[in-house]
Amino acid sequence: MAKPKKTPRPKAETPKGFRDYFGAEVTQRAEMLHKIAQVYHRYGFDALESSGVETVQALGKFLPDVDRPNEGVFAWQEDAEADKPGDWLALRYDLTAPLARVYAQHRNDLPTPYRRYAMGPVWRNEKPGPGRFRQFYQCDADTVGAPSVAADAEICAMLADCLEEVGIDRGDYIVRVNNRKVLNGVMEVAGVLDPANPDNFAHERGIVLRAIDKLDRLGLDGVLDLLGKGRKDASGDFTEGANLSVSQRQRILKFLSAGSDAHRDEFAFGSGGVDEDPEEFENRVRGIHLFSDGNYDDAISGGSYNERVLATLDALTEGSKTGAEGVEELRMISSLLAAQGYNADRIVIDPSVVRGLGYYTGPVFEAELTFEIQDEKGRPRNFGSVAGGGRYDDLVKRFTGQEVPATGVSIGVDRLLAALQAKGRMSAQAEGPVVVTVMDKARMSDYQAMVAELRQAGIRAEVYLGNPKNFGNQLKYADRRASPVAVIAGGDEFDKGMIQIKDLILGAKIAESATLEEWKDRPSQYEVARGDLVSKVREILELNR
Amino acid sequence: MAKPKKTPRPKAETPKGFRDYFGAEVTQRAEMLHKIAQVYHRYGFDALESSGVETVQALGKFLPDVDRPNEGVFAWQEDAEADKPGDWLALRYDLTAPLARVYAQHRNDLPTPYRRYAMGPVWRNEKPGPGRFRQFYQCDADTVGAPSVAADAEICAMLADCLEEVGIDRGDYIVRVNNRKVLNGVMEVAGVLDPANPDNFAHERGIVLRAIDKLDRLGLDGVLDLLGKGRKDASGDFTEGANLSVSQRQRILKFLSAGSDAHRDEFAFGSGGVDEDPEEFENRVRGIHLFSDGNYDDAISGGSYNERVLATLDALTEGSKTGAEGVEELRMISSLLAAQGYNADRIVIDPSVVRGLGYYTGPVFEAELTFEIQDEKGRPRNFGSVAGGGRYDDLVKRFTGQEVPATGVSIGVDRLLAALQAKGRMSAQAEGPVVVTVMDKARMSDYQAMVAELRQAGIRAEVYLGNPKNFGNQLKYADRRASPVAVIAGGDEFDKGMIQIKDLILGAKIAESATLEEWKDRPSQYEVARGDLVSKVREILELNR
Repeated sequence: MAKPKKTPRPKAETPKGFRDYFGAEVTQRAEMLHKIAQVYHRYGFDALESSGVETVQALGKFLPDVDRPNEGVFAWQEDAEADKPGDWLALRYDLTAPLARVYAQHRNDLPTPYRRYAMGPVWRNEKPGPGRFRQFYQCDADTVGAPSVAADAEICAMLADCLEEVGIDRGDYIVRVNNRKVLNGVMEVAGVLDPANPDNFAHERGIVLRAIDKLDRLGLDGVLDLLGKGRKDASGDFTEGANLSVSQRQRILKFLSAGSDAHRDEFAFGSGGVDEDPEEFENRVRGIHLFSDGNYDDAISGGSYNERVLATLDALTEGSKTGAEGVEELRMISSLLAAQGYNADRIVIDPSVVRGLGYYTGPVFEAELTFEIQDEKGRPRNFGSVAGGGRYDDLVKRFTGQEVPATGVSIGVDRLLAALQAKGRMSAQAEGPVVVTVMDKARMSDYQAMVAELRQAGIRAEVYLGNPKNFGNQLKYADRRASPVAVIAGGDEFDKGMIQIKDLILGAKIAESATLEEWKDRPSQYEVARGDLVSKVREILELNR
Repeated sequence: MAKPKKTPRPKAETPKGFRDYFGAEVTQRAEMLHKIAQVYHRYGFDALESSGVETVQALGKFLPDVDRPNEGVFAWQEDAEADKPGDWLALRYDLTAPLARVYAQHRNDLPTPYRRYAMGPVWRNEKPGPGRFRQFYQCDADTVGAPSVAADAEICAMLADCLEEVGIDRGDYIVRVNNRKVLNGVMEVAGVLDPANPDNFAHERGIVLRAIDKLDRLGLDGVLDLLGKGRKDASGDFTEGANLSVSQRQRILKFLSAGSDAHRDEFAFGSGGVDEDPEEFENRVRGIHLFSDGNYDDAISGGSYNERVLATLDALTEGSKTGAEGVEELRMISSLLAAQGYNADRIVIDPSVVRGLGYYTGPVFEAELTFEIQDEKGRPRNFGSVAGGGRYDDLVKRFTGQEVPATGVSIGVDRLLAALQAKGRMSAQAEGPVVVTVMDKARMSDYQAMVAELRQAGIRAEVYLGNPKNFGNQLKYADRRASPVAVIAGGDEFDKGMIQIKDLILGAKIAESATLEEWKDRPSQYEVARGDLVSKVREILELNR
């Protein structure tokens, strides 16, 4: 180690945008990842752990320029070797790009299809913000080499199982499925996409996609504006629109609302076609907010929910080969899921799902938690999306030249943890250890024997190892550790073969409440025989459970 | 994504020195980490997860130079911001340096003492070699702020518990404990260390420490040479020695062998003092190899093993205050451990443990697996060290100026996994999924319903999602996945309401063996009613367990 003699002291700080995780934050995430891994495993997915470091070339999102190719990633250049310039390396920014590299590299040794799951940190060299960090966890499952939409259906079912496994009740979430091909079909029929000349209207389609992706935030009105002349936001900034005609707009709007339409009569978007007066329609739907409350029960909607959505989509894509193919794929997904017992109470067809990423080519899906939580200002709001994914068929091609079909999902572990905490399903505080206090330093062996007994009985326990002189500090320490029980033994107790056991949870409750009614008959400290240490501690732990 | 039109295809390769981990390699490590975390937790240690990225300044081992401060670490400079040059960031190279940073940063919010555990990848920018990678796992537990050796003793006990928890039997490992102060005391008495002038003899002491650290590899003879005039290795290279006198050498040798001495009469190193003829002694011990076979049973050695080692150390350090303090600390550790039931069959005092790291200041410890394995050439050898640690009191001081006592251990997870595999405790192959084959693509819903049933029964299962045309490929796929069972159903079976269930493990055994005696009465394929799918599969899985 370099001598710090004359240099100023280093700052003890995490780099900007990074953070430390303590105690329950770490163990609860680990537990959640473990539960999700068990579901992935049960579905036949194999674990894969690639390293955090990849070559910039393999990551692919960013082409190396002369100086510094790290737009959005953390990258550095290896030292040159024998006149050969060093490779540019980078921290992975997701788990999908490494999967493509792994599959291309090991494809001769891997089964086809290759089902793999991966979980671990990824890094983004982006401006950090509140709740946005430059290192965070991803937890993915993908099937590579399976062209059939059965692979997509399976991932939707698995996603639902994962959510229930980690403690989200059925009814508190919904998996929404869409298909990029259906939207393309709708755009084709609306005249914004020409299969013979894919470059035509590309500008307009870009605006349409971005507008749909902002549906949650802008509402139908904002999307309508962006499909038309454009939108002025609250600050006065103007965003250019796609300048679609009113009937083009109507078709896209009907597509977006096909899920809500099938679900709720009052939305009254009418069925698939564009046979009504488009202007009247547009005036009618302005001000309406599409939303899902997870209440997709078939019985409530009358008839099969998904079937009715699919019928609307049939009508909206009539005349488009791509569109019909997309609807057919959704129909297949819906029926495969129904065969496994996954109905519209868990997984629904919902055309308003777009997913931002450019590389999706077919089915896309998203899991949303449908219960309300309170935002920072105490207003109720839906919790929103916790997972998403879809089919992407071009990622491996970069390496091999061959198109390899792939589909997968990524679960936002940190958002899911926040959701469980918001629902009160997870305490933010881990259970502290039983603290054996030190009244007499010379008796350290006796105290150590006590914790050894407790640990052997499976009870979390420790001896206070700070300076024992100030006994108050020992109890403060126990408090800071959220200890449920303190064990106290000094000369008097040792002489009698007794120990004192203090119920710290009850103690805290008594300190909180002035009346004590509830606990007045319950003592918060016991003197018991040394031999009863384990049984008495266990009794108190049970009492406070 | 940048268009790859004109650019050559990227190479699908891990960066040099990195690797991918597949299937059981990942899950077995995760399981082991989970088990170790449970032990750490039971001892009152709290989880900490810091980010993989730290400022180079906080990591501290490397002072930033003008250009490129990444000697041994992966480092890069952040983009400049408003004329302020960007910070140098680096991937952490261990979990201890980040702990020092975390403790200094959060010390007002953390309990004192702070017991924390951490597990995760670390990165070293070093030349990779066989079995040496530039990303690997560490799994540490440390107590910060506890000056008492009770903290060291606790960590030794915890280390023993961890090894047993992950499947190393008692008797197959030994935790060896030494104290840097004792060696310093021995060197003081031998006249190679002057407490009044610590800089004197620093050169000689450096040679002595390095020689002792190589005891395993060089044997006593090599160490004797290095303590004397020097050593010529097999290639003819000469390493300069410390030029100690024969009686100085004897004292250090007796120190080194105090553990073996107490253990085995035949070593006959004599007890502590240097009262014999040193030259005669040196001739006698040349050619002897010190080793531990884990057989430290007190009864075999006669009397308390640790007490006899400590008595030898008393004699060897007589006259040195530091030495006596060190022996007293070891005595305390030994007695605290005995009070918790940890005797010389699990934890022994062994002066031959030095541990390479410069920063240890007191007790040091090491866990060694004592069973023999076969090396690459089929020769038996001891498995060796799988964990180590010790007390280091200066790491936090870098940040705060205050000395903070700390002690901790790091378990080599990958070596421990290799050990369990060598002992046959862990199969390298994870259990594959039941594969439901696809005879009729139109029946996909029926196949999906079958796997859904199996999964709901907790059985790992999947439908074959590749191209189903070639049925042989489906069975090859099942083979590659190490599937225990294949389910087969085509038109005939569906008409009859039956399915075929193929026992693939038995099939493989039959294929391996010509005689078949053992299995000749056991069929490898069954036709059962569709309703008996789960029960029959479960029966076959049980049979093959």
